[in-house]
Amino acid sequence: MKNSTRGQVDPFIVMDVMEAARAAEAAGRHIIHMEVGQPSTGAPAAAIASLRDEMSRDALGYTVGLGLPELRVRIARHYAEWYGVTLDPARVVITSGASGAFILAFTALFDAGQRVGLGVPCYPSYRQILRALDLTPVDIRTRMEHRLQPVPAQITADLDGLIVASPANPTGTMLDRDAMAALAAACDAAGVSLISDEIYHGLSYGTRAVSALEVTDEVYVINSFSKYFSMTGWRVGWMVVPQDHVRIVERLAQNLFICAPHAAQRLALAAMDCTEELEANVAVYAANRDVLMQGLAQAGFATLAPPDGAFYVYADVSAYTDDARAFAAEILAEAGVAVTPGLDFDPTEGQGWLRFSYARSTEDVTEGVARLVRFMAGRQKMRALA
Amino acid sequence: MKNSTRGQVDPFIVMDVMEAARAAEAAGRHIIHMEVGQPSTGAPAAAIASLRDEMSRDALGYTVGLGLPELRVRIARHYAEWYGVTLDPARVVITSGASGAFILAFTALFDAGQRVGLGVPCYPSYRQILRALDLTPVDIRTRMEHRLQPVPAQITADLDGLIVASPANPTGTMLDRDAMAALAAACDAAGVSLISDEIYHGLSYGTRAVSALEVTDEVYVINSFSKYFSMTGWRVGWMVVPQDHVRIVERLAQNLFICAPHAAQRLALAAMDCTEELEANVAVYAANRDVLMQGLAQAGFATLAPPDGAFYVYADVSAYTDDARAFAAEILAEAGVAVTPGLDFDPTEGQGWLRFSYARSTEDVTEGVARLVRFMAGRQKMRALA
Repeated sequence: MKNSTRGQVDPFIVMDVMEAARAAEAAGRHIIHMEVGQPSTGAPAAAIASLRDEMSRDALGYTVGLGLPELRVRIARHYAEWYGVTLDPARVVITSGASGAFILAFTALFDAGQRVGLGVPCYPSYRQILRALDLTPVDIRTRMEHRLQPVPAQITADLDGLIVASPANPTGTMLDRDAMAALAAACDAAGVSLISDEIYHGLSYGTRAVSALEVTDEVYVINSFSKYFSMTGWRVGWMVVPQDHVRIVERLAQNLFICAPHAAQRLALAAMDCTEELEANVAVYAANRDVLMQGLAQAGFATLAPPDGAFYVYADVSAYTDDARAFAAEILAEAGVAVTPGLDFDPTEGQGWLRFSYARSTEDVTEGVARLVRFMAGRQKMRALA
Repeated sequence: MKNSTRGQVDPFIVMDVMEAARAAEAAGRHIIHMEVGQPSTGAPAAAIASLRDEMSRDALGYTVGLGLPELRVRIARHYAEWYGVTLDPARVVITSGASGAFILAFTALFDAGQRVGLGVPCYPSYRQILRALDLTPVDIRTRMEHRLQPVPAQITADLDGLIVASPANPTGTMLDRDAMAALAAACDAAGVSLISDEIYHGLSYGTRAVSALEVTDEVYVINSFSKYFSMTGWRVGWMVVPQDHVRIVERLAQNLFICAPHAAQRLALAAMDCTEELEANVAVYAANRDVLMQGLAQAGFATLAPPDGAFYVYADVSAYTDDARAFAAEILAEAGVAVTPGLDFDPTEGQGWLRFSYARSTEDVTEGVARLVRFMAGRQKMRALA
């Protein structure tokens, strides 16, 4: 049996780091994990308790393809509460994580060979999912002065689609309302279908994140219960689509997924009312962010302005290396800290960057930072002596 | 925003029946559901109890892309126990239901425009998932003398792939070891990638179902925890792939899905040891099957030989109608029984067929059959008078 061409997607470079970290731990070393993009917390306790009850009462069979009606209504209310946006619940599609939403969005919007723009650096799987669906990812090189986000002048009619993310992974930068509106208008003018990845909403440390739905209805908005709601392994997210796309997305969802996991949908519904626990998680991230920003400066790593959201810092380490993978391996071996090489997010310029995640406990982040500072001080001393 | 061409997949015809049934129930009528392809039972009680404990102890974050190692090992053992096949756990991929497995298989094996054969009638989503991935479904017209399964003479080199299902939906017919081996050999000779859908294994009523892995390693075998293990809404299944395809499928799985739902994987692991409860479910289906076969004969519906497996009977009603959708609507309105028109499984000849599911309680099936017999007797009397 032959494999397809489109199935030949790239490996994650970070997998090498994770395997080396696992091996080091198996050999008895203590490793601080700053490579992992998920909360160490689980779903909110009250939501777990509620699901435990429901599991004993209900067979939890298939839901309808678009998801539990009450969850769709609750998400529509969420847009009123968080963004002041009035949203018809009929436009909300419950998905098997943001991953399932991307598959639905790309198949509903694009035919084989069409071109979808990505602001680079970005979440690596955008590129790989597009390839697996026989679409063409088109790198849009972002600039430091735009805080590594794409800008309207870069939206051209040779694109069929554009993915934006705010807060972004790996940078944590956000698009404000004007920037989002300008990108949406540019997409509209150029006939480019806009997809807005909003999975880090709720995790921001100054102003709240702006949803693309505040500035346009002509957009696919993708969100997830994985990050703010701390439910990564449950694989449930949602998508908001234009009213006239609902029937098409419904048919695709029925056929491609049948439904999102029922238990996860119930858990999500309960989690949406667990504000106190979720905001306590955000307070931990906010403290971690301060510790990490100070520590990286002390270690001599250049960073963007403090990230607006998510739980990542993207650091320019080009003063020290032109091989991010080797540098990450050195940091793991010498400092006992696992970090992600920038190559996963940017196949060309990522050689000079590392991503640090601060999704874990403040204790872990503090210890990781101390190790990084010692490591860099020692490294500089060795270089000075050499 | 424009929709893609490939996103324009067909609706399920049965959705009209389900909506009409829902409306009838909302108006106070009692409806027997023989349209639904899922057990009314939930996951095994002991597995649910085990997961309830684990939920209180573990954050249940992402698993690795290929799934929980202990579940992959347990599934490999399952092949030894059920089929006498020695299987390397490394070849087992845990998926987001069989649905997720189809997406992975099709993207790993086929490029846009390639042709994949389906023995018609078949599970409707094969066709729609293929289309959504820009592949070309090729109908292989099956024959009554082959019990509506494809045969080696129909496997030609203009195909890139072939999907077989045993037990099949909607017919319940199985391929025996010789038939499976002959199809696998024909695929191998013609350079056709074979995909074997084995999601109804465990639900058979005479001889056990044969896995394609008993006759070849050059196959993608797809299975699910939805049917025998009674876990539809949990969205977890598995796939066995050739050794040299594992890395490619792993990368696709990491990017397209991240992982299958963690809680569902834990539940699946526990469910695999709940043999007593699961076999009790099978005993109910076996009794239902007898009731339904007798009842359909009494009602005057021609059927194949008793189905070997699954929980469906596919009945030839062409003596009574050339419009399966209208006939199903009439049965719902007059008899209060919801059934699936054959058109979902066979866009051309399905006009003369209905699918009856016997996945519910024996009480329901008995009542449904009584209603069908009365309905057909009344209908024949009316026709005689007319």
